[in-house]
Amino acid sequence: MRDGRSRPALPPRIVKEVTDVIVIGERINGMFLDVRQAIQQREAEPIRSLAERQARAGAHYLDVNVGPASDDPIGAMQWLVGRIREVSDLPLTIDTTKRDVMRAGIEAAGGKAMINSTTGEQKKLDVLMPMAAEFGIPIIALTISEQGVPRDALGRAEVALNILAAALGHGVPPENVLIDAVILPVSAQQENPGHVLATIAQTKLLADPPPKTVIGLSNVSQNAQYRELINRTTLVMALGAGLDAAIVDCLDEELMEALITAELLLNRQVYSGDFLKAYRASHG
Amino acid sequence: MRDGRSRPALPPRIVKEVTDVIVIGERINGMFLDVRQAIQQREAEPIRSLAERQARAGAHYLDVNVGPASDDPIGAMQWLVGRIREVSDLPLTIDTTKRDVMRAGIEAAGGKAMINSTTGEQKKLDVLMPMAAEFGIPIIALTISEQGVPRDALGRAEVALNILAAALGHGVPPENVLIDAVILPVSAQQENPGHVLATIAQTKLLADPPPKTVIGLSNVSQNAQYRELINRTTLVMALGAGLDAAIVDCLDEELMEALITAELLLNRQVYSGDFLKAYRASHG
Repeated sequence: MRDGRSRPALPPRIVKEVTDVIVIGERINGMFLDVRQAIQQREAEPIRSLAERQARAGAHYLDVNVGPASDDPIGAMQWLVGRIREVSDLPLTIDTTKRDVMRAGIEAAGGKAMINSTTGEQKKLDVLMPMAAEFGIPIIALTISEQGVPRDALGRAEVALNILAAALGHGVPPENVLIDAVILPVSAQQENPGHVLATIAQTKLLADPPPKTVIGLSNVSQNAQYRELINRTTLVMALGAGLDAAIVDCLDEELMEALITAELLLNRQVYSGDFLKAYRASHG
Repeated sequence: MRDGRSRPALPPRIVKEVTDVIVIGERINGMFLDVRQAIQQREAEPIRSLAERQARAGAHYLDVNVGPASDDPIGAMQWLVGRIREVSDLPLTIDTTKRDVMRAGIEAAGGKAMINSTTGEQKKLDVLMPMAAEFGIPIIALTISEQGVPRDALGRAEVALNILAAALGHGVPPENVLIDAVILPVSAQQENPGHVLATIAQTKLLADPPPKTVIGLSNVSQNAQYRELINRTTLVMALGAGLDAAIVDCLDEELMEALITAELLLNRQVYSGDFLKAYRASHG
């Protein structure tokens, strides 16, 4: 425990609002030009607007990533979180590979956050699982080992099992771990989406209650045409395989409608004739 | 064997063309008003047009159903098949619950046909499996037993196993059996689509090589709003679960684009940047 503190678990359960699937809005990321420029010039309005629009579109979490270019990533993370907090109380997924940026982001968010992400590599687990335990927050864990991304589902499920064991060992409750089966661009690795679907299905069998799963969706369509179509088709198949959460462009209305419809078909929200109308009214 | 004939197996393998998934066009069905009127008034043009348009849209089979109202179903079936054969050589799925209409349809189609459908009820299997063996053609089998549609996937997989055993007993090769897990309207049976997905996945494990699976898609959206969205979302999830064939409205372009994209993601067709453009060009 850092400073001997024992924070209450925030949030005690992963948030559930309109959709049962946990929607993590991807747009506050320095890899997007508008966000990168806003960070560089400390322009608050584009960040506040993205936070508000994603919240309205149904996000349960907002991903926050300073991008690769920042020369002061801690300062950039604190600034980004501060601007989001001016307009939104949503929990944030702090998206960085740097441990000090991670801690700064979680603290700036008042502990209402998720770690994005660890891998199954021991040196990462040894740092980030204790951090998840300290703050009592969820953690995304990519099925990547010291040997890289296992080619098939069996290999990824093995890494997932190691991750869950590490979580237990560090006092992170299993329901706070979200296994990410690592979406790669279909344009380069066409066999990968099938492995991801199988990994999601197999991960659900690794423990009882079943571990949660997540994907970083948009990566599947990198360098491809018809990106939105590829994204939503992947998401629907992954939901069918048992996916619990997704980092997505929730401003893509067709994507969100496909998500809602998949939930309806999976009996994850109550059927009504105008199920989409209700969604549109609350997120218009 | 009827009349001691021993027909060659036609087709020896289930047809595979542009898509790996077997697309069965649903539109030549007397439940649609335009088809019912065409049958009643023996107007050839609407039938020929539906055959041509579905073939162009990517159908590998055309479903043929005289509808519930005909007072001469054999004559209506023979007339329908005759009109289709004036413009298309595609194999037909003869869609009827009446054995004499089935035989008439298969013969009118020159044996280039599929039986749609038997159930797992013994009295049906005893009639239709021998017919499938006699003509050497594929057969769709609904997972319905004497007790009705089993509620969950385990019950349906049990019926599927009985169907596959009956096929073997009657000399129908397993690869000519398509197990149909019985899609019901989500508006009435919201837990059903999940059971169908699980049945598809479990059916694939019942034998090696895995049995083929099929669904009659449009039934899922009966009496629902947003029918096209519900249809294509169901189809994509079912493909993710391992579906091999689907009876669909292949004139629905968004449905077909979702199907092609799912195939791409499942590595069932080769990726190219303009995968949809190529499809559109060949089916425009």
